[in-house]
Amino acid sequence: MGSMGNNMKQITVLGSTGSIGQQTLDVVRALPDKFRIIALAGGANIELLTKQIEEFKPKFVYHLSSGSRGSKELKSVTKTGCQFMSMEDIASHPEVDIVVMATSGKSGLSPTLAAIKAGKKIALSNKEVLVMAGEIVTDEARRHGAQIFSVDSEHSAIWQCLVGESKKIVRLILTASGGPFRQYSKSQLKEVTVEQALNHPSWRMGKKVTIDSATLMNKGLEVIEAHWLFNMAYDKIEVIIHPQSIIHSMVEFVDGSIKAQLSYPDMRLPIQYALSYPERLANPQLPKLDWSRIASLNFAQPDFDTFPCLKLAMEAGRKGGTYPAVLCGADEVAVELFLSRRIKFTDIAKLVEQALEQHKARASPSLEEIIEADTWAREKVRQLAGGGKPC
Amino acid sequence: MGSMGNNMKQITVLGSTGSIGQQTLDVVRALPDKFRIIALAGGANIELLTKQIEEFKPKFVYHLSSGSRGSKELKSVTKTGCQFMSMEDIASHPEVDIVVMATSGKSGLSPTLAAIKAGKKIALSNKEVLVMAGEIVTDEARRHGAQIFSVDSEHSAIWQCLVGESKKIVRLILTASGGPFRQYSKSQLKEVTVEQALNHPSWRMGKKVTIDSATLMNKGLEVIEAHWLFNMAYDKIEVIIHPQSIIHSMVEFVDGSIKAQLSYPDMRLPIQYALSYPERLANPQLPKLDWSRIASLNFAQPDFDTFPCLKLAMEAGRKGGTYPAVLCGADEVAVELFLSRRIKFTDIAKLVEQALEQHKARASPSLEEIIEADTWAREKVRQLAGGGKPC
Repeated sequence: MGSMGNNMKQITVLGSTGSIGQQTLDVVRALPDKFRIIALAGGANIELLTKQIEEFKPKFVYHLSSGSRGSKELKSVTKTGCQFMSMEDIASHPEVDIVVMATSGKSGLSPTLAAIKAGKKIALSNKEVLVMAGEIVTDEARRHGAQIFSVDSEHSAIWQCLVGESKKIVRLILTASGGPFRQYSKSQLKEVTVEQALNHPSWRMGKKVTIDSATLMNKGLEVIEAHWLFNMAYDKIEVIIHPQSIIHSMVEFVDGSIKAQLSYPDMRLPIQYALSYPERLANPQLPKLDWSRIASLNFAQPDFDTFPCLKLAMEAGRKGGTYPAVLCGADEVAVELFLSRRIKFTDIAKLVEQALEQHKARASPSLEEIIEADTWAREKVRQLAGGGKPC
Repeated sequence: MGSMGNNMKQITVLGSTGSIGQQTLDVVRALPDKFRIIALAGGANIELLTKQIEEFKPKFVYHLSSGSRGSKELKSVTKTGCQFMSMEDIASHPEVDIVVMATSGKSGLSPTLAAIKAGKKIALSNKEVLVMAGEIVTDEARRHGAQIFSVDSEHSAIWQCLVGESKKIVRLILTASGGPFRQYSKSQLKEVTVEQALNHPSWRMGKKVTIDSATLMNKGLEVIEAHWLFNMAYDKIEVIIHPQSIIHSMVEFVDGSIKAQLSYPDMRLPIQYALSYPERLANPQLPKLDWSRIASLNFAQPDFDTFPCLKLAMEAGRKGGTYPAVLCGADEVAVELFLSRRIKFTDIAKLVEQALEQHKARASPSLEEIIEADTWAREKVRQLAGGGKPC
């Protein structure tokens, strides 16, 4: 344990320059007597990473271009005395209490497993870790006594609702905003632009997640995450559309009682909860719900036909094996193709569906087989879309 | 402890022939391997009490007309071998695990205090106990290690939301259906009939509670109960109108996170939770929320001007002392006068207000002074309404 003898928790943020990473630093900035940044790892945005290092003065740093050897671009910051290290070493360092895994994509797998093997608490934002390798990750976490806390608002809601309960759950109810195209028809969906798709009604997030929210793929990935995080059968996980994103998810217990967690949509709350658990901390910067301004909360059933990605994800989850890895890899490439205007919005689901259909799956795959399936899916989608010209 | 060496809990129901009493027996009937009725106490409906005794074969019985000496009317049931006892003896008997206090009015005070002094778990439905004598009751409960579990749906919701939390609460949000006259103007309210007032949109309850729900007095009494049950300052207790009665109440924590408890309105759920706590038990008879049938949950601020009883109750709670006893006594008589068509619906609030205004209060009153204040208020309201003819 890296605690400094007091209640200060030492935090590592992997992916500190992304949306979740930056919001994690906001929380730490607001609660300087509770949390200390001991390590940062960042990617492309070297300017922001430099600023973060200057502000938080971490002991350890990783940067994409540098590996563990240091970096020319980051040379200026070495005067703060920070030491370069690999993501895996940072994630498992004895002085670290909590690892915030805020990278995206499969690059999160290896450092997460390193943190798990070191028995750390992991605040997990990276979706691919559980979706692609849920079985391996949860098995290893059990073996090493590591705790995985989701910082998704939905899973955090479920987690908060389960506190103090003896797990007699009959159903998890994940809410989905429905995204910007909630009321679109299939034919309207074909014509949506990148700009429209990036304009999410309630959440500000990275581009990939925003597109995944518009296709409802994001909710499908969350269903798979919920399956692994809460050890819940797929037929006990339900998705309902709730456009206001105030109720973040719900749990139904054996007696028919349902508990829900509510707040304005702000990722700093689930991030802070994962850092402060089992405590809750006052943070004046977090918004408080004003009931005089809430006239109604609305609900609808998801339209699986118009938004096939949700169904594809839930099916891939049920089938298990390497299917979820194919789902992730295929979706990531398809979203890139849409963002670079090479395919239509509705082609995302089509390409993912074709990749899943053509995949020869393996049950209980090794990590290598999972990575292979992801690589195969990426190539397959590029190949399937090969004839496509920018549209 | 009266447990029979297994997990069977021995239940006493005081007020078994009333609405909450009957629903408590429904729960026991549905879970016969979990709960056993060890004692029953009933009032006017001797026919129903007889049936209940024959079905549940309690060891101990109290009946209004009989005291502890037995009863001619109930003679037939003595063949089941049950023993007559006072309410106080039943409530404190060593074989009793949980006392369901489902009587109404101040007659609940003495048996509740007997149960508290015996360190029992008390499932409390009777509102007057906490509203009139909250300070004495909670002090005695602390002293004797008795636990008070509310079976109001609102307080049960708050209790369920607090499970496992370290009490870092900033606000309790009590929901109110708003009753049948939610959208009425003041002038429309003057003309409402007894039949209209008894027709509650979401809950089936006794007459007194139904009228109190229509005036919002019931919500005011619940604010006072919440103050005592959760040791919460009045300015941290908020009431919002929620016509569907699906969200039963909410708790806001220091980090801005809100937890809510939801279900269809059915008193058997909070009753069962109070009996089964800390467990939850599967009960197929309890309804499960069907989200495909819920399109929206609505919210509005309460109209203190049109429904002055809510404000009167909250003010009486804040002032404390004997004011809440005057509130209870005055309201009970005013509701009786309305039900017997001697005053108008809007006169209920007027009479309660006049009684509160004319009352000379005592701070930290004894139980005797509380009863005296209640008696004074009843006489005062009868006297104030004296000139009234049936309307």
